[in-house]
Amino acid sequence: MKSTAMRRVAQVTAIVLFLLLVAGAQAAAQTDPLPSWNDGAAKKAIIAFVQATTTPAGPKFVPPEARVATFDQDGTLWVEHPIYTQVMYSLDRVPVVVAKKPELANVGPFKTVMSGDHAAIANLSMPELEKILAATLSGMTVEQFNHEAKKWITTAKHPRWKRPYTELTYQPMLEVLKYLRANGYKTYIVTGGGQDFVRVYSEQTYGVPPEQVVGTAGATKYGYDRSGRPTLTKEPKLLLNDNDAGKPEGIHFMIGRRPYAAFGNSTGDKQMLEYTGAGDGARLSMLVLHDDATREYAYGPANGLPDSKVGTFTQALYDEAQKKNWVVISMKNDWKRIFSFDP
Amino acid sequence: MKSTAMRRVAQVTAIVLFLLLVAGAQAAAQTDPLPSWNDGAAKKAIIAFVQATTTPAGPKFVPPEARVATFDQDGTLWVEHPIYTQVMYSLDRVPVVVAKKPELANVGPFKTVMSGDHAAIANLSMPELEKILAATLSGMTVEQFNHEAKKWITTAKHPRWKRPYTELTYQPMLEVLKYLRANGYKTYIVTGGGQDFVRVYSEQTYGVPPEQVVGTAGATKYGYDRSGRPTLTKEPKLLLNDNDAGKPEGIHFMIGRRPYAAFGNSTGDKQMLEYTGAGDGARLSMLVLHDDATREYAYGPANGLPDSKVGTFTQALYDEAQKKNWVVISMKNDWKRIFSFDP
Repeated sequence: MKSTAMRRVAQVTAIVLFLLLVAGAQAAAQTDPLPSWNDGAAKKAIIAFVQATTTPAGPKFVPPEARVATFDQDGTLWVEHPIYTQVMYSLDRVPVVVAKKPELANVGPFKTVMSGDHAAIANLSMPELEKILAATLSGMTVEQFNHEAKKWITTAKHPRWKRPYTELTYQPMLEVLKYLRANGYKTYIVTGGGQDFVRVYSEQTYGVPPEQVVGTAGATKYGYDRSGRPTLTKEPKLLLNDNDAGKPEGIHFMIGRRPYAAFGNSTGDKQMLEYTGAGDGARLSMLVLHDDATREYAYGPANGLPDSKVGTFTQALYDEAQKKNWVVISMKNDWKRIFSFDP
Repeated sequence: MKSTAMRRVAQVTAIVLFLLLVAGAQAAAQTDPLPSWNDGAAKKAIIAFVQATTTPAGPKFVPPEARVATFDQDGTLWVEHPIYTQVMYSLDRVPVVVAKKPELANVGPFKTVMSGDHAAIANLSMPELEKILAATLSGMTVEQFNHEAKKWITTAKHPRWKRPYTELTYQPMLEVLKYLRANGYKTYIVTGGGQDFVRVYSEQTYGVPPEQVVGTAGATKYGYDRSGRPTLTKEPKLLLNDNDAGKPEGIHFMIGRRPYAAFGNSTGDKQMLEYTGAGDGARLSMLVLHDDATREYAYGPANGLPDSKVGTFTQALYDEAQKKNWVVISMKNDWKRIFSFDP
């Protein structure tokens, strides 16, 4: 390429960059990155955090490679009532598993599920549900699991809204994910739910690729099928229990960096928020409070309501949030819309 | 912004894009992405793979988000003789650990290391070395570990070259890492070495960020220090043994995608290469053969030489490579230069 052409590229590039910068600055000033949020402390906190950590000359600037934000899923990014979506999937798979192992039909929780008695199923304890999770989500190759889970997640519907679960994501939180990514943050899901399950839909639903999903995970076993092809088979053996202390431990294991921002909604997220908040510089720890019985649900001691099987937001957690300046998001007051299909 | 200005931006942008495309195409045609490689089957295979998987209209096109390449470290990206660098670090830490726990001074391998008897230390078995690794690389917070390991890696020198270990990376492999990244691949290190250890220098040395290092990992334990600040303490408890079958298992756990390209140099990489090679479409499985006693080392049965404590490249692995069209890289014949400081 001749040097006159090179000079021309340089000149023209300079002009374009200048014009684009002017246009960009004007566009940024005009566009609200969080349109589904009411003006209030929560929205202000998010915007102030992003501005502080991305202003190059500022005292709280965070270099792009260190920008990590972690999000709990159930109750933080989407609906967790009446029970975690993955448990719904697991319950739906019980007949398939019992058909293969008929001896299970008369065993404890499997018998209850096969009875079809809704009240009894709703009363299953977490240990009983975990037994069902282990039996229904293992024993197949990872490809078979992905195939089955994908089929289910595209067809199953939530009992209240009669819509796919993936439509029951919180629009304001999708905006936070996008806003952070637009500002150079890597967004991770850090969930007590199954890592393999969430990875099936995380990219399409949240824009979070599989490698940025940290979740409760079972071991896999490497082997070969009859034709000698390598396989990874899911085993009923827990590798990472990604709840409570397991969240910061899982974050260190999978990411190796302390997050600058973390979002949760229950006691299972407490340690992740503590660990995030204890870092140097600007850190953002936020908790979603389910206090909107009309548009979604209201539950938990922090609302003065009875404890729930899912997403326990205790008074103690509320008190810790106050003490440590974690920001509590009121679904009722902070969110203009909850779902993308809301008016 | 007025619409005349907008039109101007559009016009000028079109001109710049055209000129940049012309310049880019010329530059690409002129620049060899792998200048430290001799022309041969290995170099050809890498370039053919990248072209096939990144040609949008081609039958083997891989969408950018699925472009994953995994690299073993010891013996594949840097020197592993006379013993893995991490073991060197671990041996150097023995006096510190013994000072804290004097009862170890008379126990098995610790006594040997404290004796300073080089021949006896060189003869320690892998299980003895693993005992030392567990004792010297746990019991501190992750921040303390990072601090100590960073200090060591910037000062310690290899006994043969008298240079920092991080200078003993293979220049041809650094070029492969860059070439793949320039073509949209996410490059991961998948090492039998310690995940936390490699993460200390991976970004600076290889351009691989900590979250893209999968390695042998111990558990951490979440707790609080005396002032109530959260801590993660490294425990002597194995979570992931990232060797052999542990490599594809670790890849599924940490990445959740099957690699399109994998690079190794020993039987510990066999399953990773099998798993990679068994995927659909274009896949690249490559093995580095240490056959250059002058510029680096020659070792292992595939060279007709005795087996070594590190990086076992058996005849059986060589035979599998031939059968499955994995490409064997001869350090002697395929690499013009081995280190960046080579002439």
